[in-house]
Amino acid sequence: MKDFIFKYEMKTRDYECDAQGVVNNANYQHYLEVTRHEFIQSVGQSFYDWHRRGIDVMVSKIVINYKAPLHGGEEFISCLNLKRTGVRYVFNQEIYRKSDEKLCVSAEVHCVCVVDGVLTRGDEIAEYFQKFLNDQQ
Amino acid sequence: MKDFIFKYEMKTRDYECDAQGVVNNANYQHYLEVTRHEFIQSVGQSFYDWHRRGIDVMVSKIVINYKAPLHGGEEFISCLNLKRTGVRYVFNQEIYRKSDEKLCVSAEVHCVCVVDGVLTRGDEIAEYFQKFLNDQQ
Amino acid sequence: MKDFIFKYEMKTRDYECDAQGVVNNANYQHYLEVTRHEFIQSVGQSFYDWHRRGIDVMVSKIVINYKAPLHGGEEFISCLNLKRTGVRYVFNQEIYRKSDEKLCVSAEVHCVCVVDGVLTRGDEIAEYFQKFLNDQQ
Amino acid sequence: MKDFIFKYEMKTRDYECDAQGVVNNANYQHYLEVTRHEFIQSVGQSFYDWHRRGIDVMVSKIVINYKAPLHGGEEFISCLNLKRTGVRYVFNQEIYRKSDEKLCVSAEVHCVCVVDGVLTRGDEIAEYFQKFLNDQQ
Repeated sequence: MKDFIFKYEMKTRDYECDAQGVVNNANYQHYLEVTRHEFIQSVGQSFYDWHRRGIDVMVSKIVINYKAPLHGGEEFISCLNLKRTGVRYVFNQEIYRKSDEKLCVSAEVHCVCVVDGVLTRGDEIAEYFQKFLNDQQ
Repeated sequence: MKDFIFKYEMKTRDYECDAQGVVNNANYQHYLEVTRHEFIQSVGQSFYDWHRRGIDVMVSKIVINYKAPLHGGEEFISCLNLKRTGVRYVFNQEIYRKSDEKLCVSAEVHCVCVVDGVLTRGDEIAEYFQKFLNDQQ
Repeated sequence: MKDFIFKYEMKTRDYECDAQGVVNNANYQHYLEVTRHEFIQSVGQSFYDWHRRGIDVMVSKIVINYKAPLHGGEEFISCLNLKRTGVRYVFNQEIYRKSDEKLCVSAEVHCVCVVDGVLTRGDEIAEYFQKFLNDQQ
Repeated sequence: MKDFIFKYEMKTRDYECDAQGVVNNANYQHYLEVTRHEFIQSVGQSFYDWHRRGIDVMVSKIVINYKAPLHGGEEFISCLNLKRTGVRYVFNQEIYRKSDEKLCVSAEVHCVCVVDGVLTRGDEIAEYFQKFLNDQQ
């Protein structure tokens, strides 16, 4: 497993599996979102507090590579790194099956900040991530 | 099929099925909600307009009887009747498989009105349903 | 909080909330299902193993009372008791907000056993729950 | 709107929206999947028939660009084109709001064929799409 600035453990749920017996593709996107929200909570912030202050962080692009499927009731570790590229915050996220650390999903999630309806450079939230951005760049 | 004041046709989606190959139980609750929202739209109203006016219609109780499963890609007809019982609006809802009109789910959904945080008798929205309430009582 | 034979802690996810900012009603049914599956796992069994052996445990009826809403990112404790009534296994389930133990949802979930397509008295799985059934009856 | 070989109309559902009042990002992936399954049905085939014959068509990679959000109760047109690139079937998919044909989502979905657990060149299902592949190449 690579180095990550944040890891979050979860467990698949049977209702997230489809008729092929594996987790439906779209549910990984839920896992990735939960992980980002937990990461933001880990620095004392919240998407919805930002929303109430007029700052909306929105996904503009997502790339997901499916490497191996997860099955019902399996534990996994959802990991992320973060960098800034222009106006974008780019989350590099990977999901590993816990039992054998097999890489199941790798993803790149691009987010932008919209303040009162206008796209910004994202400086409004930069302070919360300064430590991590410095570590990586 | 019984008489209903509103019918709405839908089709199951493969991702709504679980590993047993049938629609997961919780998804019927989604179908029932969609049907109520479409019914309310059919009288020119909207849950979210009400929400913005401070009127929240909330489900207080739901009873669902599962009679027969739906499979992926099957069309069904979702039907409802409405009555008032005390402070409650009670939706009687049934879901029939379209191909043979087999009854799959019957449900009773109790809703109450909360206006600015206070439970009311629900008179705020009664006018929109007067026609249907008269027909049945 | 009442006495329960099984408790399972979870946390709501932001995507489970709807535009009213609270967990959508149908998602509680997911929480209840996850809790039953975890309970069954806690006695060393699995719905899907049973399915492969030809034993399908199916929900025939569910009654859910909504007492108070959960919001995004809230921790809760999902509890259950179990009894047999005729051919039915009846799960009494309650969901409490963790922070103040407020009761959010109480539910009654009726399950039946179908073996190779035929409704049975459910004796196939009784041994796994004997301890709990004795405790309560 | 560009030319597409298949279009499918749908309507967003209120429970698919999150607390920001717009459709949650992961649900677009559901819409894209439904559209591919309906397309396959339109040529008389089915993912699950293939699965039963030992042919699993699996998403290996997905790229989604989010252009504009959809809100609850909005109708949209989900469109797709298809090409083969090496062992991959690549679906180019776009989602347009129906009312003004605004582009909301554009996506590229890469699928591979796995037959009895072994990755193939995908020739097993090529015949069903020959017409469309010829039209485009």
